[in-house]
Amino acid sequence: MIVGKLAIVGTGLIGGSFALALKQAGAVGEVLGVGRNPARLTVARELGLIDRAVDWAEAGQADCILLAMPVGETAAVLKNLAPHLKPGAIVTDAGSTKLTVVESARAALGTRFADFVPGHPIAGSEQSGPGAARADLYQGKRVVLTPQAETRAGAIATVRALWEAVGAQVETLDAAQHDRVFAAVSHLPHLAAFALVDDLAQRADGDAFFRFAASGFRDFTRIAGSSPEMWRDIALANRDAVVAELDTYLDALQILRQAVDAEDGDALLKIFSRARTAREHWMKTQDS
Amino acid sequence: MIVGKLAIVGTGLIGGSFALALKQAGAVGEVLGVGRNPARLTVARELGLIDRAVDWAEAGQADCILLAMPVGETAAVLKNLAPHLKPGAIVTDAGSTKLTVVESARAALGTRFADFVPGHPIAGSEQSGPGAARADLYQGKRVVLTPQAETRAGAIATVRALWEAVGAQVETLDAAQHDRVFAAVSHLPHLAAFALVDDLAQRADGDAFFRFAASGFRDFTRIAGSSPEMWRDIALANRDAVVAELDTYLDALQILRQAVDAEDGDALLKIFSRARTAREHWMKTQDS
Repeated sequence: MIVGKLAIVGTGLIGGSFALALKQAGAVGEVLGVGRNPARLTVARELGLIDRAVDWAEAGQADCILLAMPVGETAAVLKNLAPHLKPGAIVTDAGSTKLTVVESARAALGTRFADFVPGHPIAGSEQSGPGAARADLYQGKRVVLTPQAETRAGAIATVRALWEAVGAQVETLDAAQHDRVFAAVSHLPHLAAFALVDDLAQRADGDAFFRFAASGFRDFTRIAGSSPEMWRDIALANRDAVVAELDTYLDALQILRQAVDAEDGDALLKIFSRARTAREHWMKTQDS
Repeated sequence: MIVGKLAIVGTGLIGGSFALALKQAGAVGEVLGVGRNPARLTVARELGLIDRAVDWAEAGQADCILLAMPVGETAAVLKNLAPHLKPGAIVTDAGSTKLTVVESARAALGTRFADFVPGHPIAGSEQSGPGAARADLYQGKRVVLTPQAETRAGAIATVRALWEAVGAQVETLDAAQHDRVFAAVSHLPHLAAFALVDDLAQRADGDAFFRFAASGFRDFTRIAGSSPEMWRDIALANRDAVVAELDTYLDALQILRQAVDAEDGDALLKIFSRARTAREHWMKTQDS
C-alpha cells in the first residue's frame, strides 16, 4: 500500500480510472470522492470508483488528494481544500495545462505549496464521466510531472509511485515547456477539430455534407467529441501558448492555400511528403 | 457474371480491391491490369488482383475499364485508351474529384463520352499500393456516381451492378455538388492534417513535440499518412472548391483564435458544444 486514504476531486474518466486502478493494484486503502455533483458521486460509488463521498473537511484528512476536475476550477477547489489539509497531506493534479495550475496552487496553498505536485497523465478519451472510467486507462501511458523548486522530494516520490502502480511511465518537464508542447500536439488539434465540425454544422445544408463524411473525417474529428467545458478551460488556462500555436497553424494553412490557388503541385507534394515521412517516423516510436 | 473482361488502370488499393472483390463475387471473367509501373503490375498479379498485365490496345478490348490511378493522370490515360476502345466498352473511374475528370473525359472520348460513367467510391485508407488491397474494402460503403446528360443508361446500370456486387451502396450526385461536399468533408481535413504534421516536423525541436503526442494526435493526423501524389492531384483537380473551404476554415480558426485571446469562455463553450452535439448526431447516422 502506497497511501492509506486517497481523495479524488472530480470522479470522471481521469479521477475515476486512477482510483479504480490503484484499488485493483492494492496501492490504496480507502478512496474518498469530492465534487459539486452529488448524482455523479453516487454513480462513482455504485461503480466502485470511490468508497465514500465526503466534504472538503474530510477530503483534507486524506494522505493524498488528486484534483481531476476541469482546470478552470483549480483555484476554487484549492481554496476550499487549503484550510482542511492535514499535516503531510500531498496534493497533486491531472490538469492538461501546468503554468496556471502551479500559479493557483502557489496562491492558495501558501507554505503547503511544497506538498503540491503538478502532474498531467497523457491518457484520455473523447468519453467523459464516471461511466467511462477503466482500470487500464494509464497502462503504458506517460505521466508528466512539473515539480517546482519548492516541491518536497518525498511528495514527488509518492505521486510517482502511485502513477507507476497504475502502469504509467513518469517523466518530468519544465512547466512552461510542458504547456508549449501540449498546446501544439494536443490543444491545437482539439480546437482544429471542433472548428471543422462546427463550421459544417452551422451551414444551412450541413446535412448534405455530413451525409458523405467517411472514416477520414471520423478520425480527424474524434476529439471534437470531447468535453466542451474541459476544453474551454484548457484553451483559457494555456491562452498564450494556444494563441501562438493557432497563429503558426494559420500561417501553415495560408501557405497551403496559396500553393493550391497557384496550382503549385511541387510545393504541395513537398509539404505532403514531409508530413507523411514525419508521421511514419513518429508512428515507429509509438508502442501502441 | 456482370462483365466478361474487366481492365484496371492503376492496381493499387482502390483498383486492386475492386478487382479482388469482383473476382470473389464471380462478377467478372478475366481481369487485366494496366499501369506505368511494371513492378507494381507484377505484384498485383502475384497477389491475384489481376490475371494479366496488358498494354493500352488490349485494355481497350475489355468490356469495362476502371481508372484507379491519381486523378491528375486522367487526361493522359484517356488519351492513351481512346483510340483502342472497342464498341460498347464502358469506361468508369474512382477519382475523388469529378468536375475535372468529367471535363477530361469529354475532351478525350468524343462521341464515346456517352460510355463514360464518373464515379467515386467513399472508401479508402491511409495505406496505398497493391499490397493494401482487400476484398472487403467496399462492403457497406457508399459509391457516388455523377452521370452527365449524355451518359448511356446501360453504362450506368452496369457500373452500378459492379459496385453493388462488391457490397457498396450506390448514389448519384451532381458533379459540382460532389466536388463541393468532398472539398469540405475529405479534402480539407487531409490538407489540415498534412499542414499540422509538417508544421511540427519543420521545427528544430520537433522531436520534443512528437515525443508527447498521444492518441488524439494519432487519430487527427492518420490521414496525413496518405499518398502525397494522390492528394496533390486531388487538391489541384478540385482547386476552386478546396480554396473556398480553406478560406472558410481559416475564418473559423480566426474566430476561435480571437475568442481564446479575448478569454471569451462563453464563445468557446458555444462552439465546442455545437461541434460535439453535431458530431454525436452524425455518429448515430453511421453504421460502423
